Amino acid sequence: MSSVLEPDEREMRRLLELAVERIVTYIGTLPDQAAYDPDGAHELAALVDEPLPEAGESFESLLALLFDRLIPKGVNTASPGSLSYVTGGGLFHAAVAELIVTATNRYVGYWGGAPGLAEVESRVLRWFNDMVGFPPSAGGVLLTGGSMANLTATVTARAARLTGELAKGTLYASDQMHHSVEKSALVAGLPPDNVRWVPTDEQFRIRPDVLEEMIERDLADGFTPFCLVGTAGTTNTGAIDDLPRLASVARRFGLWLHIDASYGGFFMLTERGQELLRGMEEADSISLDPHKSLFMPFGTGCLLVRDVQMLLRAHRVASDYVATVGALGERIGNANFADLSVEQSREARGLRVWLPLKHLGAGAFREALDEKLDLARFAAQELERISGVELVARPQLSILAFRARADDLDAEALDARTQRIMDIVNHSGPVHLSGTVLDGRLAIRICVLPFRAHAELVTTCIARVRAAVAEASGGSEST
Amino acid sequence: MSSVLEPDEREMRRLLELAVERIVTYIGTLPDQAAYDPDGAHELAALVDEPLPEAGESFESLLALLFDRLIPKGVNTASPGSLSYVTGGGLFHAAVAELIVTATNRYVGYWGGAPGLAEVESRVLRWFNDMVGFPPSAGGVLLTGGSMANLTATVTARAARLTGELAKGTLYASDQMHHSVEKSALVAGLPPDNVRWVPTDEQFRIRPDVLEEMIERDLADGFTPFCLVGTAGTTNTGAIDDLPRLASVARRFGLWLHIDASYGGFFMLTERGQELLRGMEEADSISLDPHKSLFMPFGTGCLLVRDVQMLLRAHRVASDYVATVGALGERIGNANFADLSVEQSREARGLRVWLPLKHLGAGAFREALDEKLDLARFAAQELERISGVELVARPQLSILAFRARADDLDAEALDARTQRIMDIVNHSGPVHLSGTVLDGRLAIRICVLPFRAHAELVTTCIARVRAAVAEASGGSEST
Repeated sequence: MSSVLEPDEREMRRLLELAVERIVTYIGTLPDQAAYDPDGAHELAALVDEPLPEAGESFESLLALLFDRLIPKGVNTASPGSLSYVTGGGLFHAAVAELIVTATNRYVGYWGGAPGLAEVESRVLRWFNDMVGFPPSAGGVLLTGGSMANLTATVTARAARLTGELAKGTLYASDQMHHSVEKSALVAGLPPDNVRWVPTDEQFRIRPDVLEEMIERDLADGFTPFCLVGTAGTTNTGAIDDLPRLASVARRFGLWLHIDASYGGFFMLTERGQELLRGMEEADSISLDPHKSLFMPFGTGCLLVRDVQMLLRAHRVASDYVATVGALGERIGNANFADLSVEQSREARGLRVWLPLKHLGAGAFREALDEKLDLARFAAQELERISGVELVARPQLSILAFRARADDLDAEALDARTQRIMDIVNHSGPVHLSGTVLDGRLAIRICVLPFRAHAELVTTCIARVRAAVAEASGGSEST
Repeated sequence: MSSVLEPDEREMRRLLELAVERIVTYIGTLPDQAAYDPDGAHELAALVDEPLPEAGESFESLLALLFDRLIPKGVNTASPGSLSYVTGGGLFHAAVAELIVTATNRYVGYWGGAPGLAEVESRVLRWFNDMVGFPPSAGGVLLTGGSMANLTATVTARAARLTGELAKGTLYASDQMHHSVEKSALVAGLPPDNVRWVPTDEQFRIRPDVLEEMIERDLADGFTPFCLVGTAGTTNTGAIDDLPRLASVARRFGLWLHIDASYGGFFMLTERGQELLRGMEEADSISLDPHKSLFMPFGTGCLLVRDVQMLLRAHRVASDYVATVGALGERIGNANFADLSVEQSREARGLRVWLPLKHLGAGAFREALDEKLDLARFAAQELERISGVELVARPQLSILAFRARADDLDAEALDARTQRIMDIVNHSGPVHLSGTVLDGRLAIRICVLPFRAHAELVTTCIARVRAAVAEASGGSEST
């Protein structure tokens, strides 16, 4: 007996060909698509509003609904002009890898389940560990993104360094930390008040002097400081904490040092990045997001841990029914991914990273990252030539932030103008920027990270900002 | 300036065609492939052992390495004979959906980011909530698997019901619970001793009388019971707890009732399943794994919560830089997925479920699940006709377990024979079974779940068991 759930070879080819036509057109026209298209988004729900259908419908009509109506709305995170959030764009090669992974549907949670794909994933982790300068004892795990990596790091730090009462443990991160650090601490059972927000300097880097004072005060008050989170490229402005100094503080107080390099980590592939991120190798754990600075599709995160035994100790729980396959890997010295994080079942994530790196070579990625560093500096220079705005954050890596400037306006009016500039730029145009709050004031971020963003796009972006400044200030603020 | 990272249209088609040839052949030959092939697995590491390569290599050679060497080893979780763990097989249609998702690379964490794909995902969750009988107030989130769903449930239960000290909170589950329940409690900061393992009856169902005694004792001892985890289809034997009775206990003591239906949940699509799983609608939250009983590829899990506000309350943390896109969804009453779980960045998981259900219709899934129920009962009947084995767990859903039986052997020798039977069956054959420990004795599990498993495969499985029993008992134990 066959099954309607299993298409034959001809049908498999047909379904893929239909999908490929749509995908190729979609990717080919990305430069012409709006980077942000929210109009009519609230009408989309009606297009899928129905009870679970008993009978099927044609693949063609479903693809039409998807590509003509459902997919295009919102922030086009694949487009070259997606400069609003730190998104890499999503390499096509990784999508092909993902097709292979899902179609062959192997399970890598235990090494013995899919040893070949587990080795591929271990190899990717080895490359990343080598890149950051971690020793051979290091290991890690691929996760869905920075939030999961930060949670896994927090749980590992807790197991490694927090002796005694959980309610007394304190964790330190800058006021620029990604909010997933706070969420991680809460999920891990830390009282909300035990997350210490350390103030930052004028370049949005954690202030080590204040950090030390806070730790000392906590110790005097009977708390147990156990974890320090530094950031190598904040989401807000790309700020890089003084990593060697943080390592020294962590050593002094016996804290676990976690570096959130979700955005910035892969700049380590470039010479400039290595210089900027010096000290990362002194961390106990590092979050990286291949779906950011390695241009992979969403759902590709990573945690590296200097001593993989710490990861194992924090996450391994025994069970009876996986004994056979589980033990197979251990007998030859391999850790099982299911013992290294919360996830037992999950997709095999290694191939979507390995295949593009192997096929294109790391050199192609290094060049692209160098290009992003250049483009961010170019954008900063150009913004400085627009009299109606001022830079609030210069690019340390590839993010910068600016806001409206006018001598005759108060803070509130300036915020309103900044908002207006952003709204004009974002309206159905080729670029999408986002706002944030820096020093209590609204600022516009430009995140130059999409692999599809080249000089022409950044030039367009600056031209759009210039025109928007002119329009927002009644035509009086052009260069 | 273009980039080597972006293939042109012709190259995109070429890469996909190469992958498709391999995939179609792979899937087409699945019935002839070994269900378990561990031989030489330890040699695979050498095939990928190299530093990060600077230059790329041909796609053809990489595909050859993958499909000829790396992918085939281990447990073939896509094969019809993969009866060892509860795996659905992975629908090809879902793989096509995943290709679309990764190639278009939209971000669904905030509704405003990809409203169309967010609506698709919300629709899938609505279908699931309707299926289990949850009210309109219900919501949920798609996750990577049951472990993440159980963690998310635990954190939600903690926020909703655990007032006072975390160290005093106690959680109850049966001694047959999936070990992810224990891991979830540990990750959420519960002291290990506060996870209460409730004994089970002869059908491996939680004993409500003992459960109530344990809760009362804990209350008397100053603990705060806050969560009860029932199971609708244990991993070990597919046992279904007495759900209405658990709901009554949960109500009496004010506990959050979480039902882990990761394996069994989608049998709710069948009439028999609805009867067997009666009472599930009284839960506060339910874990489902579309990658198990809905035949999706790995990485497709789900948590449903009766009152979505509880999920939001437990997981929402504010941030500055997602204000614009984050608020867009809320203004029209949509929750943002990033506020409903740990994950902020992750892949858009809705499409891989929606597209197969829409294209094939729910009827195809219902038929397949009914077939699995039938096949498990057929397998049980056939095993009863083999004199050298005995059933330890009859199929409540589609899992059963058996072990060697011989009047002249003690427990240790019987365990050795059970192991031997399993080893013979598993050796490079068309089916793969797994072992577990039940009542302190080794047992062999048959999990009839792959969508590719039909009557012929189960007949083959039984024949292999019969032959293995004969061989293991020196030819004296054939039927």
